[in-house]
Amino acid sequence: MADNENAIRTLIENWARAISDGDRATVLAHHSPDFMMFDFPAPIIRGLEAYDRQWDFFYASPKGSISFVPNELQVTAGDDVGFASCLVHCEGTSAGPVDLRLTVGLQKIDGEWVVIHEHHSVPTVEERFLPDAG
Amino acid sequence: MADNENAIRTLIENWARAISDGDRATVLAHHSPDFMMFDFPAPIIRGLEAYDRQWDFFYASPKGSISFVPNELQVTAGDDVGFASCLVHCEGTSAGPVDLRLTVGLQKIDGEWVVIHEHHSVPTVEERFLPDAG
Repeated sequence: MADNENAIRTLIENWARAISDGDRATVLAHHSPDFMMFDFPAPIIRGLEAYDRQWDFFYASPKGSISFVPNELQVTAGDDVGFASCLVHCEGTSAGPVDLRLTVGLQKIDGEWVVIHEHHSVPTVEERFLPDAG
Repeated sequence: MADNENAIRTLIENWARAISDGDRATVLAHHSPDFMMFDFPAPIIRGLEAYDRQWDFFYASPKGSISFVPNELQVTAGDDVGFASCLVHCEGTSAGPVDLRLTVGLQKIDGEWVVIHEHHSVPTVEERFLPDAG
């Protein structure tokens, strides 16, 4: 299991570095055609073309050098299915500094780990969901 | 793999039904002591006591009969690790009707599937994250 967990950790670290570098081909690499994503806004993102378009928005109107840095990465993996969670600190996009939460689901297909699900979210700012607001 | 996927599907459906029923013991069942959750607001929820407290807020000041209904549940499972994603429509809490996104990570321990990670989020309403706002 440690080998699988290390492989997934490396995949996510390389993907995050590619996001910081604007290396779009590597951002899309190791993603399944059946990929499904929950991004910050509402619509479900299905497939790699739609995923690629999400990054168009991410890279539009940068305010500076982009950094996308995972922290507290936790990986759980079996022989052919795994998932990972982390916090991400992101800077440089038009949105300004962002602290987001990320969960990634993966499957090993033909001996290679492939991402089939990503869930990106930002903590809500809506008062109705905040315990202190009650 | 189908048996594992069915077991996870049943676990999540039973958990969701327990949320609707206010059956707190079943809501907490099949969760690891090492459980980690991203909930709507920012702090990371670690462990079952903290998880239980999140449900205190959920059940405070209900506006009506609570329903927590998963849709489009997708499960990917190997022999000992699996994950699932779905949309959830929730009504009856003090927050009013909510459409949330859910990702669950599980591990089979001593022959039983156990939830070790949940990521609950609501779509952001912050303009800086919405493509149309650009």
